[in-house]
Amino acid sequence: MITLSSDSGSPYPAAMKGVIAQHSEARLVDVAHQFPRQSAQTTAFWLRELLPYFPPAVHLVAVAPGPDRAELVVRAGEHAFVGPDNGVLLPPARELADDYEAYRLAEFGDGTGSWPPDPGSSTFRGRDVFAPMAAHVHEQGVTKVDAIDALEPTTAEEPVSVPEPTVEDDAIRGEVLAVDDFGTAVTNIPGDLLTDHDGTHVRVNGTAAQVRRSAAAVEAGKRVVTAGSHGTVELTINGGRGTNAFSVHTGSDVVLRW
Amino acid sequence: MITLSSDSGSPYPAAMKGVIAQHSEARLVDVAHQFPRQSAQTTAFWLRELLPYFPPAVHLVAVAPGPDRAELVVRAGEHAFVGPDNGVLLPPARELADDYEAYRLAEFGDGTGSWPPDPGSSTFRGRDVFAPMAAHVHEQGVTKVDAIDALEPTTAEEPVSVPEPTVEDDAIRGEVLAVDDFGTAVTNIPGDLLTDHDGTHVRVNGTAAQVRRSAAAVEAGKRVVTAGSHGTVELTINGGRGTNAFSVHTGSDVVLRW
Amino acid sequence: MITLSSDSGSPYPAAMKGVIAQHSEARLVDVAHQFPRQSAQTTAFWLRELLPYFPPAVHLVAVAPGPDRAELVVRAGEHAFVGPDNGVLLPPARELADDYEAYRLAEFGDGTGSWPPDPGSSTFRGRDVFAPMAAHVHEQGVTKVDAIDALEPTTAEEPVSVPEPTVEDDAIRGEVLAVDDFGTAVTNIPGDLLTDHDGTHVRVNGTAAQVRRSAAAVEAGKRVVTAGSHGTVELTINGGRGTNAFSVHTGSDVVLRW
Repeated sequence: MITLSSDSGSPYPAAMKGVIAQHSEARLVDVAHQFPRQSAQTTAFWLRELLPYFPPAVHLVAVAPGPDRAELVVRAGEHAFVGPDNGVLLPPARELADDYEAYRLAEFGDGTGSWPPDPGSSTFRGRDVFAPMAAHVHEQGVTKVDAIDALEPTTAEEPVSVPEPTVEDDAIRGEVLAVDDFGTAVTNIPGDLLTDHDGTHVRVNGTAAQVRRSAAAVEAGKRVVTAGSHGTVELTINGGRGTNAFSVHTGSDVVLRW
Repeated sequence: MITLSSDSGSPYPAAMKGVIAQHSEARLVDVAHQFPRQSAQTTAFWLRELLPYFPPAVHLVAVAPGPDRAELVVRAGEHAFVGPDNGVLLPPARELADDYEAYRLAEFGDGTGSWPPDPGSSTFRGRDVFAPMAAHVHEQGVTKVDAIDALEPTTAEEPVSVPEPTVEDDAIRGEVLAVDDFGTAVTNIPGDLLTDHDGTHVRVNGTAAQVRRSAAAVEAGKRVVTAGSHGTVELTINGGRGTNAFSVHTGSDVVLRW
Repeated sequence: MITLSSDSGSPYPAAMKGVIAQHSEARLVDVAHQFPRQSAQTTAFWLRELLPYFPPAVHLVAVAPGPDRAELVVRAGEHAFVGPDNGVLLPPARELADDYEAYRLAEFGDGTGSWPPDPGSSTFRGRDVFAPMAAHVHEQGVTKVDAIDALEPTTAEEPVSVPEPTVEDDAIRGEVLAVDDFGTAVTNIPGDLLTDHDGTHVRVNGTAAQVRRSAAAVEAGKRVVTAGSHGTVELTINGGRGTNAFSVHTGSDVVLRW
């Protein structure tokens, strides 16, 4: 299995899938292709949350590769990552295994992708570098990445710091990680902190709201703090957009006080 | 084959797929992950429209599970559904087979998902309950669900009522079920009611429009009623958003008069 | 492998996949389902860019079929296309092979799809015609399409003209092909024209901007022209939407002057 994560939206991921399919019959599963471009922390958070639910797989992560970033293959137990050396691969790698080994791409090429690219060519790494390398690692077998000629052991960049919530006696401090199609603000605050608080009145960044199990449990126009389907606290409102009701957007600080 | 339907948007469905892939090699096909959260009727409409096109499959439906809803497995002929007991599974089940049997989840668990959950844990049912159970039903075989220990025969909640259009001599009454990326309002009124009416002038909620086979058939700024690619009547406008042109949104009543 | 491209958004492509799965075990890969409805040129551009990265496959293209368009199967080398005779299949077909053969659908039917449809029925061609025919072509084998009874050799409509950029000494003229979720305007101007121009000041439709490798390389509020992950020039701004900053939308002309 090869999973695909990117920040390139539609239709570009199709090219990555086509390239992989030229080299491998691996099952392809999309993680997401709308990861935010300028927040490696948010992407690292989601990958760390989501990838542990997968069986052993190669995870292609074409997120914020940036022109100055080297390419990495990271092995973590029976999982491997292929992506940029921007610190985003390591938080999920550490979640999947106690230890990891990082490799830098040296030289490879077989006609449908190569590294380093020809000077002057338009190389797009998700498609031209990460996709063929992910297929190659999959076909070789994750536990044998150390035998791939094109890979040289290296020391990866420092992992990005995943935005961790802090829990104090009277306040929980977190961050808005994403806004869904309904305008609900998804935070990084664990949802189980709300357990046994159904009906409790709280303040979010000073704005009054109520802890409820769903927005439908209150009157229209009332603000709700709920444990959402992502496993974390969400800010919403019955009959409107939570982002407007709480004046937050992706990246906003969230301070929840009992 | 296992199909996946949810209201959780991106990236959460990836976790459900990962969990399924731990237990099953079944092909995974997304139906949709943007079903509206507060309209079980709309979801039931779409599932009833779409699932009959599938070969025998297990259909995971993680839509509006709500904290108080029990979990169901429903067998309908060679198809099975795994989802919440909120009435949304039965309209498509009845469309797929003359009869169905409903089962309630008793106790199960194997380390990647369990029911009932540990007290105090953050259990998210799409990922932790429905996904492993869908994989289990698939591996066991749909026709043998009655042999699964964790399932007990039950009587399901009443099916939600799918919003059905009514056709009278001079008026057709329906509802806006969805708004697409182009602002086109997709209704539940069958598109073939427009057959042989190309060019006819109609009123939609009192607003004048013309029946045409596409918005491109009229001048810019003209409102059009058309039979869309979903098989139903759509409200659109050449060069704009149909929702604005007709002042409708998801859930709006639509009265079309000849 | 069968790829799927459409302009029908969500959830309609699920029905096409269900129909295909009734007839074939082929791997299904989505190219995109948000191709613009009224721009066959843009769709042809993307298909021509993306499909050459795929191994031999059947490409279902349910884009702007329009009520008056015939149905085509086009063979190009080891690839085949199934879609409407609206000129959109031929630019990618020509990219995939030196020559192509076009076939028109005569009569076929097997209960889950048929052509021509019963009079008065709601036939939706992506689901009812293209999907079963794509599965049939896949099962028959692309190189044997000439043996399919339901297909008759034909001459296809003229290919749509893909919007090609023109490069002059002091100006490059192109077009906005798409706007991504971040408001970045993706053009058809090749990204490698910016190579070795990092830091150069340019004018886009008269508006000053700077060529940089990413929007993060400039101060907030500064306009940037960059080579994006799609392989083409993109118009963006640090901390905002490129479409607003450059006053462009899908289909806008773009004149870039050094």
